[in-house]
Formats: sequence, structure tokens, C-alpha cells
Amino acid sequence: MPSEIPKIDTVAALEAQSKMDRKTKPQGSLGRLEELAVSLAGMTGQSSPKFPRKIVLVAAGDHGISKQHVSAFPAEVTPQMVLNFLQGGAAINVLARHAGAKVKVVDAGVNCEDFSPQVDLYHEYKIGRGTADMTIGPAMSPTQAKRCFEVGSLVVEKLAAQGLDLLATGDMGIGNTSASSAIATAALALGARDMTGRGTGVDAKGWEHKVAMIEKAVAVNRPNPKDALDLLAKVGGFEIGVLAGAILEASRRRIPVVLDGFISGAAALLAAIHDPDSKNYMIAAHQSVEIGHGHILERLGLRPYLKLDLRLGEGTGAALCFHLVDGACRVLDEMATFESAGVSDKV
Amino acid sequence: MPSEIPKIDTVAALEAQSKMDRKTKPQGSLGRLEELAVSLAGMTGQSSPKFPRKIVLVAAGDHGISKQHVSAFPAEVTPQMVLNFLQGGAAINVLARHAGAKVKVVDAGVNCEDFSPQVDLYHEYKIGRGTADMTIGPAMSPTQAKRCFEVGSLVVEKLAAQGLDLLATGDMGIGNTSASSAIATAALALGARDMTGRGTGVDAKGWEHKVAMIEKAVAVNRPNPKDALDLLAKVGGFEIGVLAGAILEASRRRIPVVLDGFISGAAALLAAIHDPDSKNYMIAAHQSVEIGHGHILERLGLRPYLKLDLRLGEGTGAALCFHLVDGACRVLDEMATFESAGVSDKV
Repeated sequence: MPSEIPKIDTVAALEAQSKMDRKTKPQGSLGRLEELAVSLAGMTGQSSPKFPRKIVLVAAGDHGISKQHVSAFPAEVTPQMVLNFLQGGAAINVLARHAGAKVKVVDAGVNCEDFSPQVDLYHEYKIGRGTADMTIGPAMSPTQAKRCFEVGSLVVEKLAAQGLDLLATGDMGIGNTSASSAIATAALALGARDMTGRGTGVDAKGWEHKVAMIEKAVAVNRPNPKDALDLLAKVGGFEIGVLAGAILEASRRRIPVVLDGFISGAAALLAAIHDPDSKNYMIAAHQSVEIGHGHILERLGLRPYLKLDLRLGEGTGAALCFHLVDGACRVLDEMATFESAGVSDKV
Repeated sequence: MPSEIPKIDTVAALEAQSKMDRKTKPQGSLGRLEELAVSLAGMTGQSSPKFPRKIVLVAAGDHGISKQHVSAFPAEVTPQMVLNFLQGGAAINVLARHAGAKVKVVDAGVNCEDFSPQVDLYHEYKIGRGTADMTIGPAMSPTQAKRCFEVGSLVVEKLAAQGLDLLATGDMGIGNTSASSAIATAALALGARDMTGRGTGVDAKGWEHKVAMIEKAVAVNRPNPKDALDLLAKVGGFEIGVLAGAILEASRRRIPVVLDGFISGAAALLAAIHDPDSKNYMIAAHQSVEIGHGHILERLGLRPYLKLDLRLGEGTGAALCFHLVDGACRVLDEMATFESAGVSDKV
């Protein structure tokens, strides 16, 4: 396992760019699709990158703060949805199938007994049965935070051993928009009001309460905004930490990471604070309805490809972005050039 | 052939909405993907719409105004690109294949001898060898304008006879951003400066000249903004008119139309002026870099799904949107419900 995140391969990126510029279209006329193809070349070091083996990694975990009624859904939904993922009935299953991708689930810390072993589930890495209530003290111990990163790394190592060209991050965890808002509030030094959305659908009064709980969590714990593991331990979540670890490990292996929405964004923020070079391997699939997501993307220097007013998570937006990734690569690979097609270039 | 555009089927749309609301996700959390599925149900009258037979119709035509040096590419590129489409080497071929769609080309008025008969080409409907220079007089005769609508209708009739569930509009024609800008300027009663972009890539000086030529075309011809055929005849193009006719015919048949960028937008604007009910069957795939496109979409009441800074045409943005259409329909069709998956609903 490489221990450092490699630099972007500028030679491969330039090769891709010059290939793109000979295709039968005005230069740059496919806009961000062209940029995407070129940046994927830089990430992978291949001037014609291809991603046949795509995986959406859905990390699941519960949150102590859900006792404070910050969500419109009960906490029991987290394990229920894990079973739904494994039965193939959730939105991410449908959209991953549609994109030719597999869904793999990791129980990072669901508040239930261990799931039985199943092909598409990493059941053996549970870090705890839900985090502690971060409005009272830290969400987890420093040891647990470190373990989150290790688990993320381990899972990507296993996936890569079986074949992994492109990773998407997904999440499930009742209460995890609260943890993500708390991470963003603390890391970006902005107010909780600007970082907090309606999650699965709390009403206006519920939102005020949610903001207050996030403010309390940050005030009680005072996480160090420059220390990703401290942020994770104090106001994070097991699934968020596992995703951060997975992003870091994929980056070390030159595997591009398609980020889903707000919770994936919080994980990406932790990864970027831990090692800024990881940002070079991130692709922002979409911009969520969750208000904090835009601030996170700005900090990461990422521009989203889709704006579909999504707020589901699970990796759904990332799976939709897979079609753009494949489309960009096919344009680079399959289009005729001005020479090969006998088309006149610019006057 | 039905002669009127049918109303949206609200029963099918409501059925789709209520089905969507029982899926295992917070209601509305898939945002515009949910809206898309529901609106497709309303268009087709099917509560679980499916679109296995997708076609990108690329209409090609030349423009007399190209003599005025309004484009960065020579006019000979139009017939060259038609051959490229038929050989499968253009961007639209790649992106249509990627979306499981077919490309069909219609020679609406390319300035060359008739193309030889080929499977994917309608070669027999050429309306003229390029339009006349609209800076001097009308681009075409009233009879030719009517014929454009007829050809669009005929082609869709033929496509539908072979099987057509979803239509995308595409265009090819050196000079056709100028015609589209002129249509938008005249129809929306806005200044040519606000309707004119860089097309295939003219420089700042070229852009000033292009604006002046469009202003001249509108001033010389004074098209009636409420008469689609008059707009088409005076400042339009053969391929734009054929696309407008195709949109109208698809609407009559309840076949949803995925619009590509600026030129498709100008055709859609003509269709909407001719029969406002056609707007109910339009889907805006993306918003182009061309400045006039946003104004057209606003007038049509359409919100684009993608914003990828595209400015190629050919139907490329529409083909990318096909993935979202299929994704939306699969969510509606394949996802588990709260009951079937045993997941708890909102507290």
C-alpha cells in the first residue's frame, strides 16, 4: 500500500488534452465534459482512462445526537435501510445498476447487533453501536476516530484487490446531517445557521432546534479545525470517518473518488484537512439542497456537475455522475479527429 | 395522425407521484429526478413510463448569413459533419451510443448536392441548398417555412412508425447560432447583444460583427414575433424549422422531447409560439454557454437539468440527459416501498 498520495500525472493530462483538441468539434465546446476527461487522465495517469469497475461504497452509522430529535425519521431506519441496500431496493441500488456499478455496504457503526455475513456487506468492522451524544461530550474516542480512517482504508484495499477503477462515496445514518453540519461549522469557522439544513425533512421549529443542538455540540467540544481526527472524534460520525479514510486510501491508489452530497462532503473535508493532496482525486457529483454543502465544495475547490436538488445521500448523486464520467471518457476515446473524418478545421 | 396536442394526463401524473411518495426515501429527497419521473408520466399517460427506443434527430442546414463571416468555421463543415454523423465519429454518435439511443440525420437544407441514400439519413427532404442571406432579405420563402414544419412532422411520423418512445433534438449548421440569435431577438423583443454568443468560437471583434449582422437581419426583415412561420421564413433556418415541426409532431403523439441547447431552444420557441401546448412535452436537457439560451428557457418556463458549459449542439446535451430520464423512470419502477422493505416512515 503506498503511504503517500501521488501528484497528478500532468503528462497524461496534457496528452488527453491534445487528443481532445483534435476531435471533430470546436475546441472546448463540450465544456466541463472535456475538463472531466482531462482531469481523470491526470488522476489515473492514463491518457485514455476507462472505469469498467465502479463501486458505490455506502458507509452506515448511527448518531447519539438523534436522541435530541434532530431528524424527521427514527434511528431504527438506519439498520432497516442497510437491509434494504442488501436486498437491492433502495434508490442507490437502482441508480448504481443503471450506471453499471456495484453497491458495497460497510457497517461503520449502526446501533444494532452485528449483521450476519453477506456478500455485499462489510459487517466485521463495526466501530461502535452509534456514536455518543455530541451535545454532551465527544461523539467518539480518539482511538475510535483513528479506527474509522483505518477501516475506510482497509475496505478500499479489499475492494481494490477485487478490482476497483472508480469509487463513489455514499452514506446512511439517521442524524448524520447534524454531524456533517457540526464538522462544517467547526472546520470552516462559519455559523451553524449557515451550515444546517432540513435533513430528511424537519419543519421550521425542528430546524431551529437542530441549529441549537449543533451550536451546543461545537461549543461543548471545541474541536480543532486543523485536526481532522479531532473534528471526527468530537463532532463526527463513524460512517463519516470511514468515508474519509476511504477517500484518502483511494487517493493513494490513484483511484478517482466521485463524492455524493453533504455527508460525503463532510468526509471529503476531513480527508482534505488530513491531507490536502486528496483533493486532487475528488470529483463533486452534485450540489445538494443542504445549505452547508456549497460552502464545503467551495473550500475544497470543487465545482459540482449536477444540480438536481437532491438531499437523499446513499451515493445517489454520485451514481448519476458516473454516466458523465463514462461519457467524458468515451468522447476522448471514440470520437473521430478532424484528420480521420476529413472535416475542415477553424478558418 | 392526431391534429391537436393532447393535454397532460394528470391522472397518470398523480399515480406516479403517489407511487414515488411510498418509496424508501424521504419524500422529495430525489428532487428534480422525482419531478422528471412524474412529468414524464403526465406526458405519456403511463404511470410507469419507459423509453427503450430513444432517437436523437439531427437536422442539418446551411445559412446564407455565413457569407458574412459570422462563424469561426467554413460552411463546408456542415456537409462534412453530416458524413461524420453517418460514419459514427461525431460527439453525438458517441454520446447517443452511451445512452442506448440511435442517431438519425435529416438533410433539411445543406448547401451541397443530395447525399446518397443511407439507412440513418433522410436525404429526400432537402428544402433548399442553404438559406438566403438574411441580412439582405428573408432567409426563405413562406412556402419553404411551411415545408420545414411539414418535413419535421413527416420525419417524426416515420420514426414513430418504426418505434419511438423519446425524441431528442439535435442540429448541425455553420451559421445557425446567428439564425437562433435572430429568432430569439425578434421573438423575445430583447437586444441582439443579449442574445448573441461566440458560436463555434469567434473572437471579440468577430462577436461585435455578428451582433451587427443579427441586428441588421432583424431590422431588414421585421419578423412578426407572434407568427412562428414568419419568424422562421425571415430570420430562421431550414434545420431549425424542421426541428420545430418535429417537436410539434412529437407533442401531438405524446412523445416527450428532450431539447438540446441554443439552436434546439430556438426551434422550441418557434414550436411554442405556433402552439403553446407543445411546451408541456418539452424537457430542457441543459443550459448552453450561448447567452440567449437562458432567455429562451425562461420564456418556455423550462429549467435545465445539466449545466456543463456545453456549446456544441448536435443533440449532445440531450443525449447526456437521457441517462437522467432513464434513471428517474427506474427509480419510479424499481425502488422498494416502505411497506415492501419494512422500513419505518417519518415519526
